[in-house]
Amino acid sequence: MAEFDLVIRNGTVATASDVFAADVGITDGQVVALARGLGPGTREIDADGKLVLPGGIDSHTHIEEPRGGPTVNADDFASGSASAAVGGTTTVIGFARQARGGSLAQGVAEHHARARKSRIDYSFHMVLTDPRPEILTEELPKLVEQGHRSFKIFLTYEGARISDAEALQVLATARRLGALTCIHAENHELIDFYTQALLAAGLTRPVHHAWAKPMLVERECVHRVCAMAEALDVPIQVFHVSGRESAEEIERAQQRGVQVWGETCTQYLVLSAEDLDRPGFEGAKYLCSPAPRTKADQAALWEMIRRGVIQNVTSDHAPTRFGGKDGKTAVGLDTPFTRIPNGVPGLAARMPILFSEGVVKGRIDLPTFVSITATHAAKLFGLHPRKGSIAIGSDADIAIWDPAKRVTITAATVQDANDHTPYEGFEVTGWPETTLVRGVPVVEAGRVVGAPGHGQFLPRGPYGMIKPSGVFPGPFNPVDGVAV
Amino acid sequence: MAEFDLVIRNGTVATASDVFAADVGITDGQVVALARGLGPGTREIDADGKLVLPGGIDSHTHIEEPRGGPTVNADDFASGSASAAVGGTTTVIGFARQARGGSLAQGVAEHHARARKSRIDYSFHMVLTDPRPEILTEELPKLVEQGHRSFKIFLTYEGARISDAEALQVLATARRLGALTCIHAENHELIDFYTQALLAAGLTRPVHHAWAKPMLVERECVHRVCAMAEALDVPIQVFHVSGRESAEEIERAQQRGVQVWGETCTQYLVLSAEDLDRPGFEGAKYLCSPAPRTKADQAALWEMIRRGVIQNVTSDHAPTRFGGKDGKTAVGLDTPFTRIPNGVPGLAARMPILFSEGVVKGRIDLPTFVSITATHAAKLFGLHPRKGSIAIGSDADIAIWDPAKRVTITAATVQDANDHTPYEGFEVTGWPETTLVRGVPVVEAGRVVGAPGHGQFLPRGPYGMIKPSGVFPGPFNPVDGVAV
Amino acid sequence: MAEFDLVIRNGTVATASDVFAADVGITDGQVVALARGLGPGTREIDADGKLVLPGGIDSHTHIEEPRGGPTVNADDFASGSASAAVGGTTTVIGFARQARGGSLAQGVAEHHARARKSRIDYSFHMVLTDPRPEILTEELPKLVEQGHRSFKIFLTYEGARISDAEALQVLATARRLGALTCIHAENHELIDFYTQALLAAGLTRPVHHAWAKPMLVERECVHRVCAMAEALDVPIQVFHVSGRESAEEIERAQQRGVQVWGETCTQYLVLSAEDLDRPGFEGAKYLCSPAPRTKADQAALWEMIRRGVIQNVTSDHAPTRFGGKDGKTAVGLDTPFTRIPNGVPGLAARMPILFSEGVVKGRIDLPTFVSITATHAAKLFGLHPRKGSIAIGSDADIAIWDPAKRVTITAATVQDANDHTPYEGFEVTGWPETTLVRGVPVVEAGRVVGAPGHGQFLPRGPYGMIKPSGVFPGPFNPVDGVAV
Amino acid sequence: MAEFDLVIRNGTVATASDVFAADVGITDGQVVALARGLGPGTREIDADGKLVLPGGIDSHTHIEEPRGGPTVNADDFASGSASAAVGGTTTVIGFARQARGGSLAQGVAEHHARARKSRIDYSFHMVLTDPRPEILTEELPKLVEQGHRSFKIFLTYEGARISDAEALQVLATARRLGALTCIHAENHELIDFYTQALLAAGLTRPVHHAWAKPMLVERECVHRVCAMAEALDVPIQVFHVSGRESAEEIERAQQRGVQVWGETCTQYLVLSAEDLDRPGFEGAKYLCSPAPRTKADQAALWEMIRRGVIQNVTSDHAPTRFGGKDGKTAVGLDTPFTRIPNGVPGLAARMPILFSEGVVKGRIDLPTFVSITATHAAKLFGLHPRKGSIAIGSDADIAIWDPAKRVTITAATVQDANDHTPYEGFEVTGWPETTLVRGVPVVEAGRVVGAPGHGQFLPRGPYGMIKPSGVFPGPFNPVDGVAV
Repeated sequence: MAEFDLVIRNGTVATASDVFAADVGITDGQVVALARGLGPGTREIDADGKLVLPGGIDSHTHIEEPRGGPTVNADDFASGSASAAVGGTTTVIGFARQARGGSLAQGVAEHHARARKSRIDYSFHMVLTDPRPEILTEELPKLVEQGHRSFKIFLTYEGARISDAEALQVLATARRLGALTCIHAENHELIDFYTQALLAAGLTRPVHHAWAKPMLVERECVHRVCAMAEALDVPIQVFHVSGRESAEEIERAQQRGVQVWGETCTQYLVLSAEDLDRPGFEGAKYLCSPAPRTKADQAALWEMIRRGVIQNVTSDHAPTRFGGKDGKTAVGLDTPFTRIPNGVPGLAARMPILFSEGVVKGRIDLPTFVSITATHAAKLFGLHPRKGSIAIGSDADIAIWDPAKRVTITAATVQDANDHTPYEGFEVTGWPETTLVRGVPVVEAGRVVGAPGHGQFLPRGPYGMIKPSGVFPGPFNPVDGVAV
Repeated sequence: MAEFDLVIRNGTVATASDVFAADVGITDGQVVALARGLGPGTREIDADGKLVLPGGIDSHTHIEEPRGGPTVNADDFASGSASAAVGGTTTVIGFARQARGGSLAQGVAEHHARARKSRIDYSFHMVLTDPRPEILTEELPKLVEQGHRSFKIFLTYEGARISDAEALQVLATARRLGALTCIHAENHELIDFYTQALLAAGLTRPVHHAWAKPMLVERECVHRVCAMAEALDVPIQVFHVSGRESAEEIERAQQRGVQVWGETCTQYLVLSAEDLDRPGFEGAKYLCSPAPRTKADQAALWEMIRRGVIQNVTSDHAPTRFGGKDGKTAVGLDTPFTRIPNGVPGLAARMPILFSEGVVKGRIDLPTFVSITATHAAKLFGLHPRKGSIAIGSDADIAIWDPAKRVTITAATVQDANDHTPYEGFEVTGWPETTLVRGVPVVEAGRVVGAPGHGQFLPRGPYGMIKPSGVFPGPFNPVDGVAV
Repeated sequence: MAEFDLVIRNGTVATASDVFAADVGITDGQVVALARGLGPGTREIDADGKLVLPGGIDSHTHIEEPRGGPTVNADDFASGSASAAVGGTTTVIGFARQARGGSLAQGVAEHHARARKSRIDYSFHMVLTDPRPEILTEELPKLVEQGHRSFKIFLTYEGARISDAEALQVLATARRLGALTCIHAENHELIDFYTQALLAAGLTRPVHHAWAKPMLVERECVHRVCAMAEALDVPIQVFHVSGRESAEEIERAQQRGVQVWGETCTQYLVLSAEDLDRPGFEGAKYLCSPAPRTKADQAALWEMIRRGVIQNVTSDHAPTRFGGKDGKTAVGLDTPFTRIPNGVPGLAARMPILFSEGVVKGRIDLPTFVSITATHAAKLFGLHPRKGSIAIGSDADIAIWDPAKRVTITAATVQDANDHTPYEGFEVTGWPETTLVRGVPVVEAGRVVGAPGHGQFLPRGPYGMIKPSGVFPGPFNPVDGVAV
Repeated sequence: MAEFDLVIRNGTVATASDVFAADVGITDGQVVALARGLGPGTREIDADGKLVLPGGIDSHTHIEEPRGGPTVNADDFASGSASAAVGGTTTVIGFARQARGGSLAQGVAEHHARARKSRIDYSFHMVLTDPRPEILTEELPKLVEQGHRSFKIFLTYEGARISDAEALQVLATARRLGALTCIHAENHELIDFYTQALLAAGLTRPVHHAWAKPMLVERECVHRVCAMAEALDVPIQVFHVSGRESAEEIERAQQRGVQVWGETCTQYLVLSAEDLDRPGFEGAKYLCSPAPRTKADQAALWEMIRRGVIQNVTSDHAPTRFGGKDGKTAVGLDTPFTRIPNGVPGLAARMPILFSEGVVKGRIDLPTFVSITATHAAKLFGLHPRKGSIAIGSDADIAIWDPAKRVTITAATVQDANDHTPYEGFEVTGWPETTLVRGVPVVEAGRVVGAPGHGQFLPRGPYGMIKPSGVFPGPFNPVDGVAV
């Protein structure tokens, strides 16, 4: 009689700390045994010559988010979760957005309804676009209680951005409730100034999107949000750090003891502003915010990853089809950059690119790869130890990689609902062949087999990394209202 | 027959570069000869054993500015200019303020009317509180043409502050017109957040003003305005840098090639937050913005002066009487800090304190003293070579100092219209006994002898230090609207 | 029939990445299974409520090293390894020293003979005091081949130190052979200058040892050795970083991409120069090099650990008895600091102090504790994956900790051969009750039960972290002699 | 009857602070009057349309220094002083060198004998190659008493360099005697290591000189000497800072309050390592130490000049003829770089290049030009106020410049005794037509008219800038031997 529901046999297991040869015994969706020569499983997978890695956590994904306007988010949760699993990811964190003037709780409820068809597990950041007092004091405590434990705020984008004064209220609420705030940090006024000047000068091609937001636009805002976090002694994560200068601001804040974590995305490690300048309207496929920078910035980001200044790499998956009446070209091939939907897809490409460019090319080792794709995000966002590692008692969220497989990424490879990928033609070595979510195959031999609805919502409890340091920059704690 | 209108004989002359023994020959209000053993003057002053120094330029003074509310600016131009001259200052730059919704040109015109009674020369920064397009494109070009060549903006204070978007329009205009923008840089939202928390906690004494604006409130905003200046490639001066962290941000910007100059004030070199905590309501006498910091910050500022990061020291004279129905105590001795008028007087005390704490105590040498009190301001604000030095052809704006005279500063010593000074009891060595403005004595033997109205308005032409570097942080010059 | 030789049941296991509840199955001295409800073991240990942690690796220990002069190293390998095991450490790296003018191979052979009585596993750094060409080109290749894969050099201490020119030859050899060089980095000439001045001034008490080597003495040398490592593109570890300034130099080098790792020691995290000033001759108990610094430096080092600038904490165990004819007081209670043997004991105290001050007090989390006491050293020194973690296939080097046990450290507690400890009276929470080396108990219930000779020498093969980056600071690779 | 010996009429005078139109009255070799419309002079010079600038001080020149070996210093004091005057320089500081094992006083006496034929004024740095105790305690006090108030030490070059231990003794002596130490700071051991590797690889061309000493070789040593200066609290000047990294180390030291001044040279502002790679043996003409760097380093140095981190620009004139039996090619056109005499000539080219590249191209203003070529050196080396400015009582050391004159620099232009210049073909705008030393023309209309022997030795008294700060990095002042 089988001892385990499933045994992954003869593989090489890696965690954020260790790499070792072991069989993995799985029962009831959890890792229950690690050993060599484990007893039989009802099912068995031969992982000889393969890497058995924690399933990825992509903590920055836009899936099936509603938009106003002609374009639509190309993926729903069924297609998005399929693509994620194809790339070895087993958990996505999406965004439940409050409508301006509306209820956040309602936004959350609606997003729960959409997410039910996910094939992999999921959780939400709550996007606060209108942090009125009643939202902060009535809705948020309940939502946090229900396990929605991270906030997202924008400091740019009309319709989404909040003021610095509002941001401080959000951060104070995060401190009170033990939640983590993630911030899109670009200086809105500078972008607007540059943009108006570009439009006036008739410079409206996709590449001019990059011109509209040079690096200092991001560096300034990163310094500002770090100062806010310092002033209120509250942890934050800065989203999509795109190059050296911003990463240096994060490092300076860390040196002062501010609890700020930096995230970067696949695109900032392999794309550059030159891609936005591809002939015709092709550049639109690479248009995202912040704009991809230079090759020197790519190298700087790898260095920042190695030194631990940046600890998390996500996709910031934000898919819009290129063609069709709801796509980036809907308005025409001369759409000015200001009206081209921001964002690139990247759920499936994230981990293979990081594995190939990182591990195979010797920039990082395998435990660091595991950390930046899964373990750190799990710890930061309160999913650890359930998610993010292969350890006794963890969910059996596992990707089995062929480390030698060579794949050329195409729109077909990534198996999402989009018609293009910005990584078209990118060659990688190493590919996840099988992806398990709680022990159940979602991808087998590279083919999506998991059913919509297999995914579960992941409520997140109080978690370790998100605690204030207790140190204020002055003699007063303005959140608790006491002298320190 | 006399060769000169006036000869200052046998003194030791100092400039920002040199110190030498020479007679100074003055005719028609100008320095026309430097030599030993000059021929006779119609008048002569024996300066044996004395220092003959350029009259000071105090480029940051609030005199006779109208206020709403019960308190009034304690000095008018007659009293303020007298006090300045008592302290060896021969030129003040004040502020002509636009009323919200109103005309800047009108504000300037009204301030000209007030300033006519000044005993010493003067010029104005134009305070833009409402930079509407017509102000920027219609009024400002004319005003700049008339010699009003510097702008002042506030990023904090309700009623005065402008938004970052407006600040960018002002900076772009400054670049187009060749004007210099001076900035009060503190993070308004953070101050507001802290302040609300303090009031809610019942912490309302003068010292809590300092609690409401810890150093990072200033550091953040200094980084931000430097980024704005960098983005538009336009020179700025940051007003009243109060301590190490802000000065370091200025240095970092200078290291990047941004043309940013730092000013500090007397109070940040000798006062600290502890003064705001004096018993009873005494702390209100030391309440200004930014708040005085720590002794370590004082030392850091001297170091920054020595290394040239900070190049200009002013008074930020902003006088409110302590007593009386229009004074700081008008509303009572329990007035919360938010309602106590900001600012300290300091016109007369500035140069003696800098001389005594700087030159006498060995922190700086005499040419550096001349530079930070006169020459640099003259160059930065377009008054050089007419003002700011003792050189052939310069205006004979001269203070004759007894370098050994010991004075205890009191409200009487400073000879302004106020009833107190924050430097009460401060002992200095070195005092300007005689102050000449264009060769005419305004102070003699420490006594005010100059008549109201002797002062002249100083229009300022295009000047050397205020020119963009031509380097933008991206591939686009957003002010001129061209690729770079 | 038993499945395992030993099962540690019901404990909480931690690695440098994860914390999870699991039984640990051990057979043939290795971890062979991790699961809950493992089958029976021949022996079983109930670890309910306990932490099951990787045995510590103390990569900087002086045990049974011969000395000239009246004092002797208080510990032999039997007593030293006992004390290490008492503190949860299962591997020590000691020092096999070349005599000036002598053979390194002979020094290594002699140290092997001494180490055979160790109760725990061990390896050696090779101390090069006289790197003559034949040593570098004939002896070292063979020794490295035999698994002696790390070098130690001193840049101060008469009799041990080598010149910078020699250091470069050692570093070049390390690069050629794939070895890691550890460096004692203090500026010899400055220490000597200060020391001569102190002796001349009659300032000879223990505390004057700290006066003789202010922080900049270390900072200078750290910058210098980082420059050497950069010039030759060869990895190094800087030993015993004692405070903020040195750690900052290491960080700067890391930011330039230099492969430099920083080690600190227990004493720099909890002792200060004030301890050297204790009454009478007590300060001699705290005399080590570098000298302990200030409380601010202690805080800075914790911060550097948190940010990953410093990755390894050791004891630098260097025991001399206080009393007796071979002790620190042998020459009398007025021995000048220059003749007091350097070094403090600390094998047993290291991990309990780090656990208590780090994990219990919330400065670091449990995985970080595991990393800085075991995993990082294992990886850096080529012992991983055999040592440094609890993973399938690893040696069963395990300490079982009672996380709540409160212990006051005394000379008796640490169970070494010394008559004092600098941590006398230090109170800790958390203590390792049982220590296993390859599955065999060396300490049980706090009592040493392991036999001398149980320890094995650990040869170290080529290992991952020690590889040059390939980047030279100029156009020439001087080690390989080719243009780059 | 003439009032003055000489009047320079109608020129524009500049000092390090001011620019003004004035006649200059000169009597008895001193500036005695500045005015417009001065009375008559025995001689008059019409300077209409010309700049009347302080004669330059070149504080780093090797003239008529004896050498061992086949090559000789191409200039004697007659030719060198002529060339200096051609370039607007009126004072040179040369080097009086102690022979190893010999007397410094004797070296000084011999150099006095050589210098007597100088056409311009001069002073000497004393080169300590063998700082034995009797030199430091017996010879130096007398020499300093006689006005030889600056020391020079080398930390590289066999035959000249002293050890770090010796350097500390020199620095301590400098502190005791109030002298300033100038340091050639390059890491000798690293250069030697690189050099041996290059020779072994057969890479021996002039350009490989630059390969032998990459920037970090200098950066390391600059950090080290700054640490020495900090440890003993003694001012130093770092010679020939050649690029960004070294300048940054100086800035960091200045930020810590260390009194370190940085000098750079003409060649580091306009030459680069590419010049050393010119075809054939041409590169030998550009071979100096440190080696010229990159264009980015040139830009960084200008920035460091603007911000005051570097305050002095000299020629480091070190002339060897190219041809002839005593020239660089004496040994043949395949002379390995290690045997090519170091150094480039540059006395005449220094000021015209700095004027043209600095003032004319807008990198610096005219007062800054005056400061970096004359005033700062005068103050630093105790020649102010006698030298370095145009002020009442100063020596009439004056160069009259045609700011519009365009000159192509050639070996003929510079009028020294050499057969080449590294600035051959360099085009400049602005040239000193007349050079006066104490009122006596040495160059008129570009032609040397001054007689050998007109120059005077300049003894230097105690001077202001060279005073310790009193702050030690630890609790002990090791020079005075007292606790602080």
